[in-house]
Amino acid sequence: MASITRFARASSSSLQVSTRSAPLALTARNFSTVKFNNNDRKERVVILGSGWAGYSFAKDLDPEKYERIVISPRSYFVFTPLLASTAVGTLEFRTVLEPIRRLDHGIGFHQGWAQDIDFANKTIRVEANANADSASKAVVPIAQGGQLNQTTARGATFDVTYDKLVIACGAYSQTFGIEGVREHANFLRDVGDARRIRLRILSLFEQCAYPYPMGSDTLTDEDRANLLHFAIVGGGPTGIEFSAELHDLIHDDLAKMYPDLLKFVKITVYDVSPKVLPMFDQALSKYAMDAFKRQHIEIRTQHNIERVRLADGKLGSEHGELKLKFKQYGDKEVGAGLVVWSTGLMANPLIKQLAAKEFAIPISPEDRAEARRPKAKLATDARTGGILVDEHLRVRIETQTAEAAKGSEIVPTSASNSLLRDVFVIGDAAVIESQRTLPKTAQVAAQQAIHLAKALNKANEGVIDVKNAPGFKFRNWGVMTYLGSWKAIHQGPRDELRGWAAWVLWRSAYLAKSMSLRNKFLVPVYWLVSWVFGRGISRF
Amino acid sequence: MASITRFARASSSSLQVSTRSAPLALTARNFSTVKFNNNDRKERVVILGSGWAGYSFAKDLDPEKYERIVISPRSYFVFTPLLASTAVGTLEFRTVLEPIRRLDHGIGFHQGWAQDIDFANKTIRVEANANADSASKAVVPIAQGGQLNQTTARGATFDVTYDKLVIACGAYSQTFGIEGVREHANFLRDVGDARRIRLRILSLFEQCAYPYPMGSDTLTDEDRANLLHFAIVGGGPTGIEFSAELHDLIHDDLAKMYPDLLKFVKITVYDVSPKVLPMFDQALSKYAMDAFKRQHIEIRTQHNIERVRLADGKLGSEHGELKLKFKQYGDKEVGAGLVVWSTGLMANPLIKQLAAKEFAIPISPEDRAEARRPKAKLATDARTGGILVDEHLRVRIETQTAEAAKGSEIVPTSASNSLLRDVFVIGDAAVIESQRTLPKTAQVAAQQAIHLAKALNKANEGVIDVKNAPGFKFRNWGVMTYLGSWKAIHQGPRDELRGWAAWVLWRSAYLAKSMSLRNKFLVPVYWLVSWVFGRGISRF
Repeated sequence: MASITRFARASSSSLQVSTRSAPLALTARNFSTVKFNNNDRKERVVILGSGWAGYSFAKDLDPEKYERIVISPRSYFVFTPLLASTAVGTLEFRTVLEPIRRLDHGIGFHQGWAQDIDFANKTIRVEANANADSASKAVVPIAQGGQLNQTTARGATFDVTYDKLVIACGAYSQTFGIEGVREHANFLRDVGDARRIRLRILSLFEQCAYPYPMGSDTLTDEDRANLLHFAIVGGGPTGIEFSAELHDLIHDDLAKMYPDLLKFVKITVYDVSPKVLPMFDQALSKYAMDAFKRQHIEIRTQHNIERVRLADGKLGSEHGELKLKFKQYGDKEVGAGLVVWSTGLMANPLIKQLAAKEFAIPISPEDRAEARRPKAKLATDARTGGILVDEHLRVRIETQTAEAAKGSEIVPTSASNSLLRDVFVIGDAAVIESQRTLPKTAQVAAQQAIHLAKALNKANEGVIDVKNAPGFKFRNWGVMTYLGSWKAIHQGPRDELRGWAAWVLWRSAYLAKSMSLRNKFLVPVYWLVSWVFGRGISRF
Repeated sequence: MASITRFARASSSSLQVSTRSAPLALTARNFSTVKFNNNDRKERVVILGSGWAGYSFAKDLDPEKYERIVISPRSYFVFTPLLASTAVGTLEFRTVLEPIRRLDHGIGFHQGWAQDIDFANKTIRVEANANADSASKAVVPIAQGGQLNQTTARGATFDVTYDKLVIACGAYSQTFGIEGVREHANFLRDVGDARRIRLRILSLFEQCAYPYPMGSDTLTDEDRANLLHFAIVGGGPTGIEFSAELHDLIHDDLAKMYPDLLKFVKITVYDVSPKVLPMFDQALSKYAMDAFKRQHIEIRTQHNIERVRLADGKLGSEHGELKLKFKQYGDKEVGAGLVVWSTGLMANPLIKQLAAKEFAIPISPEDRAEARRPKAKLATDARTGGILVDEHLRVRIETQTAEAAKGSEIVPTSASNSLLRDVFVIGDAAVIESQRTLPKTAQVAAQQAIHLAKALNKANEGVIDVKNAPGFKFRNWGVMTYLGSWKAIHQGPRDELRGWAAWVLWRSAYLAKSMSLRNKFLVPVYWLVSWVFGRGISRF
């Protein structure tokens, strides 16, 4: 990390380079000769991630006051509540995307992975990710042992320094280490996932529609029933909404094109717990179950999946049939053409890596001697692996234990040092010490982002006025789930709605929150087009 | 081909299976027991291809009179005149696609490649292609020695019989065997090409925008100028329109996001001939050249490209920089980040394969003895390799030469036999004997399709009434080319237009021809959205 140190030294004295105004002519050689007047320049806030937390924060942070730089492996924000709609062709994929570079007032952006963070020297090592055809390919790397997946070719690396750092890199899909899930199941968290699912659904119908099968290529009715079985694992809102939207696609659109295949189609939602949609009260969840029953979507609760594998022979290798093993069924496997997996979240590999690392706490320029720097680790939540923050979203650290400090020159740190200066965590990666049960949802992430942006916009010389600023408090906007056939359920903190009215509310709420004017216009256009002309079923 | 024969035998007696009404329960085993009443069933017209010729024909053929079955490796028709607009984000990809299965009144469709045709037994062997994530991947296979590319896994095969066959499989991109073109250049003929080009343009800007390059990862200004050089080979309407649209994208949209990179951007159109846009008269083509000069798009005529290769080292392997070798520049290669290739068309490998094959002419049931069947070959146009047809688009055949017939029992065929009964060719694969200079354009293909559909709709017991039906005559609707910055040129048979008026005409004409109501609505919506909010630049 020689170059990190060199950069950081420069940065901690007087050097800062705005990526907006003069990036191109800079090379390592002439770097050290560039000087900026410290008083004229804005503080640089680097944001890791472009999801609900990172994007909302970047959008709300005052560009007059701060230089904003987003680092993210993908070049856009995804409006996740409408992702299931894109997976079935109701909406065009791009209507749920907001390119980061379209943010107003000059946003800095580097497309890449944060490989490591040097908190002592306020520097992030970034691995470039612009070569990937689609950012989504690289967005779901296989996390193995807490390391980022290295199967994609490594991009060039470079360092970015920060004055303030906002870690908003989110979480990964939880697979509980179940065999075959990462290889064969589809998540539904990014637009690339949605595209793969859409292509797979349409191609399964096309495969099963071939006529005149001969000899070993013959598909039996049983094969067709297996291939047209859509298995959704996880009965939370994502899984339920996807099932509902899939049902609409099949019955409104595909039924006309493949009338003979309809009898083979089956949609099943599996969950380990005794009930799905646990965040809804009994009446609403029963309403949902009844709606599903009428639509012949099967709910299988208390089902523990143990393995997903490709079927043997041609059915696996050519048609991609999957076999699901459940504890409840013993050796009898269930066939499926598509498995959509949405069972929750686990810690991001970057967070795991940072949590494991000991670092020297950045200290004031007066106390520079390396030996006198206290050492620390990030404090983490034992249950979820998230980083602990206080109610102002500032990162908590655990300082050196007495034992490790023995014989060293490290001085015990004061109470004020139990916060890592200038570093914040928001969204799925954060656990507020006093509010550990907050769910990992878009609502929480967005609200934390807005809270922190406001606090920093009001901050005096870069320091949040914690005495007068209130701490973060989650305000429950309620939960909504689409159930198919123009029906939804909504559970607010004090009210609830069901049926068509909830559906109208659902669509309007999503529309109002859809970020850019462009998409606020395009989303209803597509709702209209899909309603009048049918969903987008071109296999592309 | 044992099974083909078996099927064909069955078919030539009394068996026909509609793929619409009873495909699923059929397997090879129960196939031979299915009987349909010959008098009740419609004649089956099988259409190979879903481009301008195949799709327009399928759309216009009367479904009351004929059973229509389309066989095509892709599941949609592409509205090619607007393809360049999708490659730069003005239009959404799907707005130029029309799914074949959305055609009204029940269309039969098998997604696959026609591997071979048995004219004697009226049977097509089809290789399934539904597994491909996107049909476009397989749509541009590398043609080598007239064989279809076998690098993609082979799908299952099955046979389809026909009463009438319309070959509309189009042509392939011509590369003149120039080294590296198939591997490294991008065509612009299918929606997959357009998507790859769009992702590449956007990712090149992102790559060149990285800050703080260090050590061996450093990009010099020269590297950036090479990577942001967009080379278009071929100065026909496709190449010129793409250059113009690319210029608009860069100057209207990317300039705001990457202001520092603008100075490195260069667009060059290369052509071997002394002038580009040869189909326009001198004044219009000069107008186009002047417009390009103002936009700093360079035109390099009389340039012979000899090779395209990846640059050495990191610039090639990591950034995908290409090196172009021209005869005129000797060993000095030109760097580029993207090469778009549109130099014309060559014969489809299927057509080459069919043209090389000798087959027995299908004859009347009265004259079944295999030995007495005359042998023939398809007649082809020596210059282009296209299949010769008469003015009713019926396939010409060359019967056995006297030499080959010597000593055999084959009887010389009569004059009426120089047409292959029930087989037609339209579009790029066809060459009308008396009109050999017709260009291979969408206009010609669509007009031939409409002509043939009309003739067959009027046909009496499946036979075109050639005495009263007029032969095909091409009606020139004129050519139009967009030049960027809201300007276009139009050359009609008797009139011409330039500038803004031509642009309005251009857009309206394309809009009126855009096939479905859905896309007639969506295309202007996107024109509006791109104009108000900017083009779609999310890298997905």
